[in-house]
Amino acid sequence: MTDPSHESPLTPIETLGWEGGVEGHLHMIDQTRLPIELVEIDCRDAETVWEAIQSLRVRGAPAIGIAAAYGVCVGIQNVLDADETRFYTRLEEVATYLATSRPTAVNLFWALERMKKTAWDARGRHSREIAEILLAEARQIHEEDRQMCRAIGRHGATLLADGQGVLTHCNAGGLATSDYGTALAVFFAAAESGKTLHIYADETRPLLQGARLTAWELQQRGIDVTLICDSMAAQVMREGRVQAVVTGADRIAANGDTANKIGTYSVALLAAAHDIPFYVAAPTSTFDPAIATGHEIPIEQRDPREITHGFGRQTAPEGIKVYNPAFDVTPARLITAIICEKGIIQPVSRERIAELVAIDNPPYHK
Amino acid sequence: MTDPSHESPLTPIETLGWEGGVEGHLHMIDQTRLPIELVEIDCRDAETVWEAIQSLRVRGAPAIGIAAAYGVCVGIQNVLDADETRFYTRLEEVATYLATSRPTAVNLFWALERMKKTAWDARGRHSREIAEILLAEARQIHEEDRQMCRAIGRHGATLLADGQGVLTHCNAGGLATSDYGTALAVFFAAAESGKTLHIYADETRPLLQGARLTAWELQQRGIDVTLICDSMAAQVMREGRVQAVVTGADRIAANGDTANKIGTYSVALLAAAHDIPFYVAAPTSTFDPAIATGHEIPIEQRDPREITHGFGRQTAPEGIKVYNPAFDVTPARLITAIICEKGIIQPVSRERIAELVAIDNPPYHK
Repeated sequence: MTDPSHESPLTPIETLGWEGGVEGHLHMIDQTRLPIELVEIDCRDAETVWEAIQSLRVRGAPAIGIAAAYGVCVGIQNVLDADETRFYTRLEEVATYLATSRPTAVNLFWALERMKKTAWDARGRHSREIAEILLAEARQIHEEDRQMCRAIGRHGATLLADGQGVLTHCNAGGLATSDYGTALAVFFAAAESGKTLHIYADETRPLLQGARLTAWELQQRGIDVTLICDSMAAQVMREGRVQAVVTGADRIAANGDTANKIGTYSVALLAAAHDIPFYVAAPTSTFDPAIATGHEIPIEQRDPREITHGFGRQTAPEGIKVYNPAFDVTPARLITAIICEKGIIQPVSRERIAELVAIDNPPYHK
Repeated sequence: MTDPSHESPLTPIETLGWEGGVEGHLHMIDQTRLPIELVEIDCRDAETVWEAIQSLRVRGAPAIGIAAAYGVCVGIQNVLDADETRFYTRLEEVATYLATSRPTAVNLFWALERMKKTAWDARGRHSREIAEILLAEARQIHEEDRQMCRAIGRHGATLLADGQGVLTHCNAGGLATSDYGTALAVFFAAAESGKTLHIYADETRPLLQGARLTAWELQQRGIDVTLICDSMAAQVMREGRVQAVVTGADRIAANGDTANKIGTYSVALLAAAHDIPFYVAAPTSTFDPAIATGHEIPIEQRDPREITHGFGRQTAPEGIKVYNPAFDVTPARLITAIICEKGIIQPVSRERIAELVAIDNPPYHK
C-alpha cells in the first residue's frame, strides 16, 4: 500500500506547461471557466501571459511565478537573432511589464528576478543560446515546484489512514501550483499509495474556491469528494464523518500561527472541539521568520460585493454594511502538525519550526 | 432606558395583515422579492392565499398559521348570505384546500383546526355573523403571536447591554411571524428601551436567509447591522466585536437540546470557545416534551442544488456529491439560556424547562 512504484491511478491535470523549444509556447487551464468548462489557452506573446495573470486565469503564488518565468521565454521570441543590446533591452522590458500584472504577488517578482539574473549570468553568448538557458531555468522553477508538492504529499500521506474522512477548506490544490498543490497533494499521495479517502470540501465563501476548484480537482482525479457549505463542517464532524482536517497556509509566523483563507480558524476550533487533528500543509517558503506571532499579520479587507453580489446576482439589501476579511489567523496551539516539503513539524513550536526551516532553505517563494 | 412607554423608534414592518371587515382582504409582503424590492400583495380569494403559502411569499411557522386563518375569512366571502349547509360545506372545502399548501407546516393545520372549531361552535347563527366571529378569531391568532413576540423581546432585552455587539444566524425575525419575531424581537425590544446594539448577521448558506431577510429587517428598522459570511463568525468573535449570540429554534427537546438552521451548532461551539454567551429565543410551543434529547430529532436532507446552484448560477462541477443537512442540533450544555414568552430558562435543564413550559401552555403552534 505504500509501495512508491505503485502506478498512479490519478488523471493528470496540468495547470500550465511549455510546449516545444525556445520558439514554443506556454499553455494553461483557464481557471475562470472552471468548474463549468475545461478550457486550455495558449500564450504566444507577453501580452496574453500578462492578461492571464491579471484576470486570474492562472492563480496561486507558485503557479503565477511559473507562468511569469515562461512568460519571459515567450516575450523574447522576437529577439532570438538580435544583438546583445536589443536582446537585453527586450528582456528588461518584458520582465518589467509582466511584474505589473499582479502588484502584490511575491512569487511573480521572485521568478522574474531569477530569470533576469540567469540571463545576465549568461552574458556573452548568442541571444538564441541565452533563450535556451532561460527556458531551462523556467523549466527548473516549474520542476522545483513539482518536487515541493510531491514531497509535501509524501510526508502528509503518512498521517492519514485508509478509509478515513478528511475535511479541507478553500483550495490548496494543484491549480494553485504546477502540480499536486499542498493540502490536496496529501490526498493525491495517499490515493497513489492505495489509501481510499473520503474528502469533505467546504465551499469556502465568499469566492467558493472549495466548490469551484477543490471539488473539481478531486473529482477529476477520481477521489471521493462531498461538497458542503462552510456552516456544515461542525455537523459533519459531530456525525463522525471526518477523522482529520488538512488545509493550506498563506503565511506562517515564527511561532506557528498560521494565516490562511477566512474560515480556517473556525474549522480549527471546531476540530479541537471534536478531538480531530488539524494539519496545515505548506512549503517552508510560507514561513516568515520576521513575524514573531500571528498578531503581527495584517488582515486584508476585501470588496463587500464579494458577499452581496456573490455570483452576478444581488443577495443582500442595497447599502448594507459588510465585513469581509480575506484571511484569519489560526493560533499554533490549534495546529496538530505542519506538513512541509522537508518533513513534519509536530508539535508546532518555535524551536521545531526554526530547526526544520533553517535546513538548506532555497530562496523559492521569497 | 427601560421605560415601557418609551416611544418606538422603529419603522413598523407588517409581514401580513387584514384590511377592512368581513368583506375585506389579506395583504402581505411578498418575501420572494426581498431584499431587492418591497412588494405587497393582496389576497382576495383562497387560491391567492394558497399560492402565497406554497411559493413561500409568506414563510415561517407563525406567519403561515396567521395567513391560513385569514385565508379562511377570504375563502368564505362568497357564502356570507348562504344557508347553513352551503356555508359549512364551503368552510370545510376552503380549510381542506389551504391545508395542502405546505404539507408539513404544523402551524398551518393548527390554525385551520382552530378556525373550523370556532365556526362549528357558532353554529345556529347567520352565516355573516359566523364570518364576523371567524375574522375576530383570525385577528386573535394574529394578536397572540404579536404578544408572544413582544414578551420574548422584553425578556431577552434584559440580557443585553447598551453598546454590545451581538451575532445572529439565519432569520428568526418579524418576517417569520406577524410582528417582531423571536431572536430579532430581542434586538427590537432592546432598541425600543434605548439600547444601541451592533448586530452581525451570518448570511446563512445555502439559502441566505441572513443576507436576504435578517439584514433587511434590521436595516428597515434602523438597527446597526453588518453582514458576514458564516465562515467569518469565529474571526468576528476573536476580534471582540460581539459579546453575545442570539438565534431562534425550530424544535427543542425536553432536555434543552435545540434543532435550528444548519450552522447554529457551529456558532454555539465558536461562542463557547470565546466565552461568549449563546442564547436561544423561542416560544414555549417550540418545546417538544415527547423528545427526550436532540438525538431523537431527525435531520432533514435537502436538494443538492441549493448548494451547487445557490446564486442562480452553477458554482460547482457537474455531478458533484453534496451533503446538505437543513438543521443541526445544539446540545443544551452549549446554551447559556433559552428566552421564552414566559421568561428566561437559565441554566438550561430538564427541570427548569418542565417547570416553565408547564405553566398555562396554550395549544398555540401545536
